[in-house]
Formats: sequence, C-alpha cells, structure tokens
Amino acid sequence: MNEDSALDSLVKAIAKLPGLGPRSARRISLQLLTNKESVMDPLIRALTHAKEQMKICHSCGNLDVNDPCYICTSERRDNTQMCVLADVASLWAVERTKIFKGRYHILGGVLSALDGIGPEDLKIGHLVERIHTQQPAEIILALSATVDGQATAHYLMDRIEELPYDIKITRLAHGVPIGGELDYLDEGTIVTAIQSRSAV
Amino acid sequence: MNEDSALDSLVKAIAKLPGLGPRSARRISLQLLTNKESVMDPLIRALTHAKEQMKICHSCGNLDVNDPCYICTSERRDNTQMCVLADVASLWAVERTKIFKGRYHILGGVLSALDGIGPEDLKIGHLVERIHTQQPAEIILALSATVDGQATAHYLMDRIEELPYDIKITRLAHGVPIGGELDYLDEGTIVTAIQSRSAV
Repeated sequence: MNEDSALDSLVKAIAKLPGLGPRSARRISLQLLTNKESVMDPLIRALTHAKEQMKICHSCGNLDVNDPCYICTSERRDNTQMCVLADVASLWAVERTKIFKGRYHILGGVLSALDGIGPEDLKIGHLVERIHTQQPAEIILALSATVDGQATAHYLMDRIEELPYDIKITRLAHGVPIGGELDYLDEGTIVTAIQSRSAV
Repeated sequence: MNEDSALDSLVKAIAKLPGLGPRSARRISLQLLTNKESVMDPLIRALTHAKEQMKICHSCGNLDVNDPCYICTSERRDNTQMCVLADVASLWAVERTKIFKGRYHILGGVLSALDGIGPEDLKIGHLVERIHTQQPAEIILALSATVDGQATAHYLMDRIEELPYDIKITRLAHGVPIGGELDYLDEGTIVTAIQSRSAV
C-alpha cells in the first residue's frame, strides 16, 4: 500500500462512521473497490439520492422527505401530547410501537458534562417556543435511563415548570423488560421494579 | 419511520458492506443524514474520487491508481520470485513488512466447497499464464492457515508441478506468533511450532 491519496481519504471517510475503525474501514474500502458495479455504485447512488431527498424537520427534528415532516403535518396526531426525545433513532423506536399519537420534539442529544454538551447545544430553547405555541397538556420525557439522560430530564422538568402553563410532565416507566430474566438484570432495575410493583 | 424509499435503499446499501448488519446500517444512515456537510459530503466525494482513481491491476490483481500497478511496473522488483495470495488485504499485509521484493499474484479468494468456489472462480488459469511468461524460480504460496487456504495451496502445488519448469514451491512458516503467549495458542499451532523447532 503506497501513498494513494484517493484510497487513504476513502478509508478515513469510512472510519469516521459510528462503530467503524481504521481496520474495518480498510476492509470495507477493499470490498467497495473490488466490487465497483455491484457494491460501490449502488452505495454512491443511495447516498446521493438520500442526501437530496431526506430533510431534517425544522419543527420536531425528525428525518423525512418533507419539511415539516409527516408527523408534524398530520392532522390525526394529538396536539395535547408532546414526547421529548434525544435523537431520531429514539423517535423511530417509539413510532414502531404505534402506541403514541402525539407530537415529537428531538433535542439532538443529552446534557453531558464529560462530552461538554450544555443546554445551549440542545434544542431546548426551541422546545420552550414550541410549548408556547402548541400548549400541550402533557410532556413525556422519553430519555434514556442513563445518568446523562436522567440529568437532562431533570433539567427539562425545571425549565418546563417555570413556564406559565399547567403541564403534566411524565417519564417512561422503569422495570423488568418484557421477556427479561431477573437473573440477568442489574439490581437498580430490580429495585425500581419492586418499588413500582402493581396489583394483579 | 414510514416508507421512505430513499432512506430504505441507503440502509440496505450500507448493510451490504462487510461486517455491517441492518442495525449498524440504520445507525450509520442516521449519522450521515443528520451530518450532511461534515460526514455525508466528504464520504460521497471520497467514494466518487476513489471509484474514478483506483483500478484493479489486470496482471497481479492489486489495487492501484495505475493498471498495471506500481509493483508490476517496478524494475526494482525481483522477477524470480512470485508470491501467490488470496486477496488485496493479504498483499498489503505482506507489502507492509517490506521483506518481499518479488512479484505478486492475487487469486481473488480461496477454494471453498461450502461457498461453492471452485478453481474456475479463481485466477488460477491466469497464474499459469503468468508462470509461462515470467518463469519464476520460486513461488511462495502465502495463503491463510485455514482448511480452505491449505486446500487451495495443495491444489496449486499440483497444478504448478504439472508445468514443464523447475519451480521451487514454498509456503509460509507456521508457529508461535511474535509476542504470542503459549497459554492462549491453540494446540495445532503449538504442535507445529514444536515440530518445526530450530536450534538456538
């Protein structure tokens, strides 16, 4: 392998993708370059097409072919509920359940002291604006049950409670996942599941 | 996530890359679409550039900006040695050592009964042609120490021995990798290392 800048830049561009390092990037680059017609061309076409077609909804932060997205423009969704999420992947996860029929708001991450992500780096000001406009009756904070996720939820609760509206703030229930074996669960989850137990 | 064909085809194209599945492909797609300028544009540019620049050498099978490649055209390489490899990754691995100064020949894989890869699927006919032209004194079979790799090496030995030339056929030594702890090595490697032991 001599200094082939075209190959080097390809390996570097691929290594920047989440979950990939220099070794897997080199493997993928080789696969692409030895299969130009069957693998590389379809990938370039799909990337270019998706780049042109997919837009980030300026209202909720979702990815869609339209801006505002199909959820924000739908008249069948419930304006009284707003679900606050960290990212698009979380929105897709909730949408797949088909149980939530309100609107969404994507923060673009969670507060993180370690990664230097403060409130001004997230779409929190925009969330407050949307609360003023939409005045939902309930805000569901659907953030991860991690330290950063819960810190973000607490910060948002404080910010929302300052607002001059009577908004019910809820969070996702913690407990034993469906199909989860107690034996493999951490103690924190089991403690929460016992404390939040319900009558049968 | 509704039926966004642009997004679906992107996820599918990425999931086809080695080492990636639908889940990591979705994660990468999201990362790309939410960072169009910083991640997606450089990737598309690098792919397009590499696609135009990098060619497969029709002689040895290496990837290079020129065809024939820089190794095949170099006058400083030794025509009396030819190293036969499964793929470009193996060639790069050998080149990094800077110890081999002969020519290369890439087969494009190894024989595999399970995957239905027979001799006609590999560049074996082309190897025989190159032996006729170049008439190397030594052929090094640098194939993996797997069942398929060794079966390929045996097949090649038979084919090369049929030829009307006096060619020395060698293979890579087996043994304990440098820095390898005996405790973590499989028995097969240790047996080979003991049998091939050398005086100090």
